[in-house]
Amino acid sequence: MATQVSEEGFRQRITALVESLHDETTRFFIALDGGGEFREDRWDREGGGGGVTRVLTDGTTLEKAGVNRSVVEGTLSAAAAQRLGARIGGAAEARFFVAGMSVVAHPRSPMIPTVHLNVRYFEITDPEGRPLDEWFGGGTDLTPTYPYPDDARHFHRVLHTLCAAHHPAFHSRFKTWCDHYFVNTHRGEERRGVGGVFFDHLRPSESGLDREALLAFWLDIGRSLAAAFGPIADRRRGESWGERERRLQLIRRGRYVEFNLVHDRGTLFGLQTNARIESVLMSLPPIAAWPYAPQWETGSIEARLHEMLEPRDWLVEDD
Amino acid sequence: MATQVSEEGFRQRITALVESLHDETTRFFIALDGGGEFREDRWDREGGGGGVTRVLTDGTTLEKAGVNRSVVEGTLSAAAAQRLGARIGGAAEARFFVAGMSVVAHPRSPMIPTVHLNVRYFEITDPEGRPLDEWFGGGTDLTPTYPYPDDARHFHRVLHTLCAAHHPAFHSRFKTWCDHYFVNTHRGEERRGVGGVFFDHLRPSESGLDREALLAFWLDIGRSLAAAFGPIADRRRGESWGERERRLQLIRRGRYVEFNLVHDRGTLFGLQTNARIESVLMSLPPIAAWPYAPQWETGSIEARLHEMLEPRDWLVEDD
Repeated sequence: MATQVSEEGFRQRITALVESLHDETTRFFIALDGGGEFREDRWDREGGGGGVTRVLTDGTTLEKAGVNRSVVEGTLSAAAAQRLGARIGGAAEARFFVAGMSVVAHPRSPMIPTVHLNVRYFEITDPEGRPLDEWFGGGTDLTPTYPYPDDARHFHRVLHTLCAAHHPAFHSRFKTWCDHYFVNTHRGEERRGVGGVFFDHLRPSESGLDREALLAFWLDIGRSLAAAFGPIADRRRGESWGERERRLQLIRRGRYVEFNLVHDRGTLFGLQTNARIESVLMSLPPIAAWPYAPQWETGSIEARLHEMLEPRDWLVEDD
Repeated sequence: MATQVSEEGFRQRITALVESLHDETTRFFIALDGGGEFREDRWDREGGGGGVTRVLTDGTTLEKAGVNRSVVEGTLSAAAAQRLGARIGGAAEARFFVAGMSVVAHPRSPMIPTVHLNVRYFEITDPEGRPLDEWFGGGTDLTPTYPYPDDARHFHRVLHTLCAAHHPAFHSRFKTWCDHYFVNTHRGEERRGVGGVFFDHLRPSESGLDREALLAFWLDIGRSLAAAFGPIADRRRGESWGERERRLQLIRRGRYVEFNLVHDRGTLFGLQTNARIESVLMSLPPIAAWPYAPQWETGSIEARLHEMLEPRDWLVEDD
């Protein structure tokens, strides 16, 4: 592992890369929306670091979209380090540095899926700054309302191509990880959406890739929305919809709220670490519904959507 | 403590009382709504017991109201018993019996507050059925959208009178407990509403009251909505409201969702014990909103409502 001096250099580099990703992603959603503007809030965190939250509300295409970046430092107890999956040997305490971007877009039209993306880089040192651990994490997943298998296929194919350029095993591994992560376990293993990729604790030497190779993969994930989500939004934005599709969208958003508040590690980490609450919860949909025990007729769009939530190999051609 | 035989007798009595409370509460809300009907679902729980869930949707006064009763038995690990606050001595395992009713009403009009009530009776035995512990728990709290201090005063006064008839210390103690329980700690200690009463682990001999005296108090709490909530609904149902009040209502309901999914013990107990999920989550509002970082002008209805959420002595006369 590198010396303390070069760690500092890498932190600066990652910080600059996260800023670029954040600006690039903001521009992508401004273009995709075609009318709306982002409000920007800069915030500091007590205990070290801060971030920039940008939220677009009531846009032309997007009902609510948030693009958050943060660079945060602080102290971890041994127990907190363990919960985080950090390797700190027998140390009683450690310091962490985390830089990342988090993105959620809730389109107005139920015909366009909700999309989420997150990339984060963690560095753990002892209290004197000596390196103990470091890893990359991230992922992106798609949450449709209307059951268009073609959209799920497109999303997964783009991610497959992206992953395959870095390591032959990455797509299969991270697609499966995603299927196991975004699950409302309290609803009989119902998935939040149709998945995508999810990975965590990717350390230099992971699968034979060094830090630079992992960084290149991680950056490609961070930039994947243009190819993975953009074409889906473009081909669905003209589709008409009515009360029925809106109702299903609000129910699916309710499940989104359930996942984020009950299960999502990033959200719970934010709630527990006194991060700026409006930045942590910007991922919640603008509006969501909980009708009691809705039931769907076989073959209805609602039933077909629920069938689509079952994990499957989306790379095969047929329905 | 009584013998195993009389425990069985008390369980039957509590079960019958919970059924009566459930029916009485259902009738109360049917009359209060003035038009809507409850859908009823009977459910069995894997592992023992079951319940009856009644939900009224899109009523005249109520947008969604749920009245749930359940009688559930099962096994507890020592760790689960500890989390529940049960006294099981050094036993490695215990059995539990819990009977209770849970009520949430979300009125359509933002001028009428949301109300919640819950009563539950727990009995813990060793695996052979020998008594180890028993207690009463419950409470009721009010969650207004529109800032009417008179409604909070009415609610708290009725509960004060009710509690005072059973023990001079109960109201002050359980009102304070409520103020400390219904808190979105992740939002800088923001309260869910204006409180009410909350109590747990009330065991026979508590404050000098035996099981019969505690049962009488508990039943009075279970029947308190008619006096505590009914007059508020009646005097507010004619008030006009518009988009602005509706918007604030949906935001307050968002906070309600946050509390129930992140903090509420009963909900988390339900999510973890494979209870029927639609019965556990019937408490969630029909529709809720999360606009990003809303801000309120000093003196606005929104700011006044937020001021009302600060705990205070609602028994004093003035604003």
